[in-house]
Amino acid sequence: MNGAEILVNALLSGGVDVCFANPGTSEMHFVAALDRYPKMRCVLGLFEGVVTGAADGYFRMSGKPASTLLHLGPGLANGVSAIHNAMKANSGMVNVVGDHASWHLAYDAPLTSDLDGIARPVSHWLKRAHAPDDIARHAVEAIEAARSRPPAIATLILPGDAAWNEAETAFHHGEVKGEISLGRGYSAPQQAAIDAAAKALKSGEPSVLFLGGEAVRGPAMELVGKIVAKTGAQVFSQTFCARAERGAGRVSAARLPYPVDHAVAALKDYRHVITVQAAAPVGFFAYPGKPSLLADPEAEIHSLCSLSEDPMQALEALAEAVGALNAEPKREIRPAEMPLPTGGLNPLSIAQALAALLPDNAIVVDESITTGLNSYALTAAAKPHDWLMNMGGSIGFAPPVATGAAVACPDRKVLCITGDGSAMYSLQALWTQAREGLDVTTIVYSNRTYQILQMEFAGVGAGKPGPSARAMMDIGNPDLDWVKLGEGMGVPSVKVTTAEEFSAALARSMAEQGPSLIEVVL
Amino acid sequence: MNGAEILVNALLSGGVDVCFANPGTSEMHFVAALDRYPKMRCVLGLFEGVVTGAADGYFRMSGKPASTLLHLGPGLANGVSAIHNAMKANSGMVNVVGDHASWHLAYDAPLTSDLDGIARPVSHWLKRAHAPDDIARHAVEAIEAARSRPPAIATLILPGDAAWNEAETAFHHGEVKGEISLGRGYSAPQQAAIDAAAKALKSGEPSVLFLGGEAVRGPAMELVGKIVAKTGAQVFSQTFCARAERGAGRVSAARLPYPVDHAVAALKDYRHVITVQAAAPVGFFAYPGKPSLLADPEAEIHSLCSLSEDPMQALEALAEAVGALNAEPKREIRPAEMPLPTGGLNPLSIAQALAALLPDNAIVVDESITTGLNSYALTAAAKPHDWLMNMGGSIGFAPPVATGAAVACPDRKVLCITGDGSAMYSLQALWTQAREGLDVTTIVYSNRTYQILQMEFAGVGAGKPGPSARAMMDIGNPDLDWVKLGEGMGVPSVKVTTAEEFSAALARSMAEQGPSLIEVVL
Repeated sequence: MNGAEILVNALLSGGVDVCFANPGTSEMHFVAALDRYPKMRCVLGLFEGVVTGAADGYFRMSGKPASTLLHLGPGLANGVSAIHNAMKANSGMVNVVGDHASWHLAYDAPLTSDLDGIARPVSHWLKRAHAPDDIARHAVEAIEAARSRPPAIATLILPGDAAWNEAETAFHHGEVKGEISLGRGYSAPQQAAIDAAAKALKSGEPSVLFLGGEAVRGPAMELVGKIVAKTGAQVFSQTFCARAERGAGRVSAARLPYPVDHAVAALKDYRHVITVQAAAPVGFFAYPGKPSLLADPEAEIHSLCSLSEDPMQALEALAEAVGALNAEPKREIRPAEMPLPTGGLNPLSIAQALAALLPDNAIVVDESITTGLNSYALTAAAKPHDWLMNMGGSIGFAPPVATGAAVACPDRKVLCITGDGSAMYSLQALWTQAREGLDVTTIVYSNRTYQILQMEFAGVGAGKPGPSARAMMDIGNPDLDWVKLGEGMGVPSVKVTTAEEFSAALARSMAEQGPSLIEVVL
Repeated sequence: MNGAEILVNALLSGGVDVCFANPGTSEMHFVAALDRYPKMRCVLGLFEGVVTGAADGYFRMSGKPASTLLHLGPGLANGVSAIHNAMKANSGMVNVVGDHASWHLAYDAPLTSDLDGIARPVSHWLKRAHAPDDIARHAVEAIEAARSRPPAIATLILPGDAAWNEAETAFHHGEVKGEISLGRGYSAPQQAAIDAAAKALKSGEPSVLFLGGEAVRGPAMELVGKIVAKTGAQVFSQTFCARAERGAGRVSAARLPYPVDHAVAALKDYRHVITVQAAAPVGFFAYPGKPSLLADPEAEIHSLCSLSEDPMQALEALAEAVGALNAEPKREIRPAEMPLPTGGLNPLSIAQALAALLPDNAIVVDESITTGLNSYALTAAAKPHDWLMNMGGSIGFAPPVATGAAVACPDRKVLCITGDGSAMYSLQALWTQAREGLDVTTIVYSNRTYQILQMEFAGVGAGKPGPSARAMMDIGNPDLDWVKLGEGMGVPSVKVTTAEEFSAALARSMAEQGPSLIEVVL
């Protein structure tokens, strides 16, 4: 058994049975091993950001790490920004990065780089296999790390000789299943934190729950709803969450507004901010003369539980402490009629169409930025669904994450909602969706600008943009044609310019299986 | 004057008057400054790899560093692999990477990352501006580094507050031209190295010159041609060179073959390998049981001059030492007739068409890999041109580098020759070519496979690929449609399937101005 076979075997034994891949020469033994381990589903991406972003989406929806297969330092580098987003979303993954054979590194061949240096900023766990006999042990550690709470980005560097040489010790030849734990689970929340939060809620002073992590999943939101019903506390989720479970029949939480002024206004009356798997609320960017911390400076921040502590246990204990266990949470109720919009396309009409047409159990991967302003609030009572957001802020998040979510959940419809500027960072994901027949509907809002930058330009006090500055935010001239781009990668695509056309195209796409793209011209 | 204005002013004063950019919120003051400094040409890329790759191509053709403008750690990360290629090609550039305002970093906002850690592996010079008063000094250092021999990748991290705050000291308000030197020039080559090389050439033992860096430019090749004519030495260039000046009337050098076995065979009879701005020849990848060093193990390696030493001075001294100054070099002679190919498209017919139709002074950016196997040799006597190659091995090199080369040389036709697999890594460059009206003809060889990997699979001893392995090298299913992808980004595009069609499309594109794309279906 060579090192590559040991690795694929160990990954499978540890429940890692999907590999998103963009391999090169140094990974050919791993690729060869796939023929001998057909249980490993290997999904090709034509750019590494698709590969690592897909692993993020896969983790968010399956709760399991996928592996990635990347080619040397530059291949990893192309995947770094999507790994950054995954790190911020606490998605685990096991990156396998090929390297030159150990003896070849001294010669500074073209693809030699500071691979460990490239990996370090985006790896919680990072090791280099020096020999085939190292690999099973490394793989176990990597999988355990990726399954920990919070989950880790684990990166294993696999030099060519470690992959192709035969292992010497018998130990590594068999299954390694017995060695693989399910990863560290959550630790228990701290009683003092629960007591402090309960005291705040019972103080009669205005209090707000601020939710992140798994606190925005359905079961946790039930408890949040009980606490709110009993205590009258306000509740916000982070502006961006990894995965919010929401929709009709569920308890929902508004997102803290993105603009600093709005967020400060929303929080200013609260004396207590109780965070649940979230840090204290902080601005996405810094602005001259504006605060980074968004809560009132006088407010007390209480951390109910961190990302390594069990949010269900913490919320249950808190609900009990405030006598809310039998309270009735306010759940979203889907209106009997949800009329489809007519006329022009704008953030409101788009949101109305989405709210009416989201199918049961849909997965929405949202990078819609300015055009999607109303979408979250107005879909709160749509059919039950998951909403995945960009927690790392690196643009181009949605198409790869949607790809991975669709691999994780083949029976669910995935909507990838993105802007034209955003989608251009990772459009190669469409090809993987076409190849794998993934059930992803990509909605591209074509406003032909980096519209968020036009807002931010004023926000940071840069004044009014002149022609040179405007040219850096205008992505028309020429206009991107998303029907051609989608079809060029094998995805059936249509263009719509009215609310009626949008609703019709969306309804059709929801009724059909497989990838499609709707370009929404604004 | 705020920090951003000081920076743009300093860049201009230092001769850096092109900025390839993909800015975000934290770079808005730099963008605002562009309106006040219209001499800075700012070129937008829709993905950061386009931005940094374009800076590489710009440097190769202009000899001057461009600046880049990138958004925080993830934005830089997306540009890292193209910077890697630029580093290996010894292209200088000045990267300006925005960061959060200093006080905001403590709060771990979504886009906070280990930015310095991401920059370090691809930066020879790396500093962070802590205040507006730092910036002029940093800019001077960065530009000097980027103009050194060998040129440096200089990365300046510009936090928001350093960009938007006003400088306090008067010194930084004026022009800083006087402080900017032209960068360190070459140092003189070492006499001992010249003597050793001359002794080898005069020994009567078989000797080979191995060229890289500026030794493959026209004037240096003249001297190489004289030395070869006088001494009978063999000559090879590196398999990949940053910029080879070649074509009719010039002295040419064959590239050392890419396959290790072929390279070893080509070098095995030479007792002396004289390197000129090149390291000793080394394999691109490692293979089981094959050497990394390609020269005969008994051969003596003589470094005539390094990348920091003057190759013209070294070659002149060597030519004098071997009595070759008046020798007549063998120059390429363009045949009276260069017939256009007929029938099927294959590496040979493609090369024939290129050889016949390359216009005077063309710039060829070559990432054609397997389909381009014959192109270099068969174009040796085409009209004079430059040939730019991928020295870092990170795929997706050609479209961005062609973009930057066209910005540097608006009066020259640029041919970007690439495979379908390669082009998918950086296809966003087509949009920048369309927007800027750049005179780039992109030729995409569509073989619907990672064909190089099919070669490498056997080469690394991985046996015969089974269905799972083959799926990782097959990029058909669905086929990419490059006519749609090109047109989707505003580039007029055609598909050709025969040699006649290819020649006709190529001739038409050579006769017209502006971007176009030819998909060559193989």
